[in-house]
Amino acid sequence: MKSRAAVAWAPGKPLTIEEVDVQGPKAGEVLVRIVATGVCHTDAYTLSGADPEGIFPSILGHEGAGVVEDVGEGVTSLKPGDHVIPLYTAECGKCKFCLSGKTNLCGAVRATQGQGLMPDGTSRFSMGGKTIHHYMGTSTFSEYTVLPEISLAKVHVDAPLEKVCLLGCGITTGIGAVRNTAKVEPGSTVAIFGLGGIGLSCIQGARMVGAERIIAIDINEDKFEMARQFGATDCINPKDYSDPIQQVIVDLTDGGVDYSFECIGNVQVMRQALECCHKGWGESIIIGVAGAGEEISTRPFQLVTGRVWKGSAFGGVKGRSELPGYVEDYMNGKIEIDPFVTHTMGLEDINKAFDLMHEGKSIRSVILFDQ
Amino acid sequence: MKSRAAVAWAPGKPLTIEEVDVQGPKAGEVLVRIVATGVCHTDAYTLSGADPEGIFPSILGHEGAGVVEDVGEGVTSLKPGDHVIPLYTAECGKCKFCLSGKTNLCGAVRATQGQGLMPDGTSRFSMGGKTIHHYMGTSTFSEYTVLPEISLAKVHVDAPLEKVCLLGCGITTGIGAVRNTAKVEPGSTVAIFGLGGIGLSCIQGARMVGAERIIAIDINEDKFEMARQFGATDCINPKDYSDPIQQVIVDLTDGGVDYSFECIGNVQVMRQALECCHKGWGESIIIGVAGAGEEISTRPFQLVTGRVWKGSAFGGVKGRSELPGYVEDYMNGKIEIDPFVTHTMGLEDINKAFDLMHEGKSIRSVILFDQ
Repeated sequence: MKSRAAVAWAPGKPLTIEEVDVQGPKAGEVLVRIVATGVCHTDAYTLSGADPEGIFPSILGHEGAGVVEDVGEGVTSLKPGDHVIPLYTAECGKCKFCLSGKTNLCGAVRATQGQGLMPDGTSRFSMGGKTIHHYMGTSTFSEYTVLPEISLAKVHVDAPLEKVCLLGCGITTGIGAVRNTAKVEPGSTVAIFGLGGIGLSCIQGARMVGAERIIAIDINEDKFEMARQFGATDCINPKDYSDPIQQVIVDLTDGGVDYSFECIGNVQVMRQALECCHKGWGESIIIGVAGAGEEISTRPFQLVTGRVWKGSAFGGVKGRSELPGYVEDYMNGKIEIDPFVTHTMGLEDINKAFDLMHEGKSIRSVILFDQ
Repeated sequence: MKSRAAVAWAPGKPLTIEEVDVQGPKAGEVLVRIVATGVCHTDAYTLSGADPEGIFPSILGHEGAGVVEDVGEGVTSLKPGDHVIPLYTAECGKCKFCLSGKTNLCGAVRATQGQGLMPDGTSRFSMGGKTIHHYMGTSTFSEYTVLPEISLAKVHVDAPLEKVCLLGCGITTGIGAVRNTAKVEPGSTVAIFGLGGIGLSCIQGARMVGAERIIAIDINEDKFEMARQFGATDCINPKDYSDPIQQVIVDLTDGGVDYSFECIGNVQVMRQALECCHKGWGESIIIGVAGAGEEISTRPFQLVTGRVWKGSAFGGVKGRSELPGYVEDYMNGKIEIDPFVTHTMGLEDINKAFDLMHEGKSIRSVILFDQ
């Protein structure tokens, strides 16, 4: 079948809207019609060429929501008409990762997903006979896309797909990092570095779990108003201080924060986030993705005196079993998504969504396929 | 009163045995007659001059055991005749650290202890009118020493002080890092880097909690026999491999270890210890003390994919409330101490204890004051 798609032909070039060929689902696979998809920094990172694992040509996009159109042989948990959110972190329920009870990093389709292919080692996308690769196992910038059954979360049929698509990455990542990875307790003091979609979601998560003091840090003060709306109690611009920001925060909090979150991908900020934690128990969670080859560093004394350095991917959330609950939390008003959607547009304007992101003018642009 | 003591007059010089003046205990303080004391790498580190916080002249020693001789005003929890282990990590039970339930790093006497002084800002040691400083709040290389009441753990009166003195630092640090900091579960795979007293104690701790595979790593193969006696299942010399040791361990364990412990103080080994951990859940605990100004580093991807970097001081053990239990575990055969005591000697031979340690010939030398 044919599908409209935004194709990334080469690094550093704008996407082009094409009519691509999509092969139907093979065994264990599902054909999904994407209704809406967010445009995330990770898409831009890969498109820029900075991602050493980027593969071209490919169809980017990993923050979508849609409707099951067809299922391949042996698919039992999904049927046409089901509403789904694609998962770049699958959940097979059978591998050592899924069975460990300690991580959401399912290993089942990781190898082929990293190669831009389906689990059988081939692609379902092509154009004029030329293979186009999948991306993050999701490729939500195509109206029709094929995924493994284990890479789809079935969600409530009444959930507005043009909103809950953002639970496919950023919002879940931020809230999950607070709830699953850090397990922030009520009354805690937290610091959140970087107030993009993930940082704001961390703020939201911190407020949900009852953090008492939520310190939001960014060098772009335009972000502060929304940070306050989501629950930030203090907004700090590091440029306003001559002291290192970690010292500023330690002084402000009588010794440091209980939890900090790095939502940028800057290795210097990762160090600041660790070092603003309280001696004895402060934990710092790295969420941002650093550039290829970059390293974090600190004095080991920081850890020996009780600080903990962790990271989080997709907020530690197991997609198939936990994401439906996030959707219901949105539907019953516990999770806010609407303020994140600062722009919507049709697929033909997708490059504008990248521009808005790079200019810091959007939190999230959502692409609507039927617009 | 007078006391025999080994005095560190200057960095890099041997200790000299002196008769020093010891002032009696002030309010909240306790005079202790030290019966036995271990000689630990931290004493050697400070004596070498490499410790930027080292103060001279001072009386070193922090791994001792003794008997209460006298108590100052207001001391209620100890009386003359009680058997005690000095604590370089006090436990006041009242500060924010003690009340947090999350750390053993009591803050009560930290500032003055770091200055080589008692909490009132003065020293109890002098010689010919010249002040001699305390060290780590303990100064167990003096037959008579004065400590804050909150820096003494009261232990079972039948415990052999010439053995349980080693619970004042190394053995407790290693076992505690396994039990308190890492909370190693039965069936786990662990890697232990560095097979000195602390590393061997980690092995012992790992066996106690039921770890299934215990991988011991050292470049000195003379240490392997004792490592096996304490429970190591694999002994590895990194010099036998051309691959980086973290890769060797990942290959050996089908993906990495559940927990690793760095017991050396080498920042390169700290990185290896982190990177040999299993994706998704592996935790690495830094115990060793690195040189001044040295830094650890790694790619943040290591943490984002689920590894955790932590540290441990005195094994996370709260001295006054938990150390008596360690002593009883020794008495009822659950904790082994005797094999660690490779040498005993009188105070006059204390410099020999340092030599044996530097030559890698001892696990622990124990100084016996009445020998």
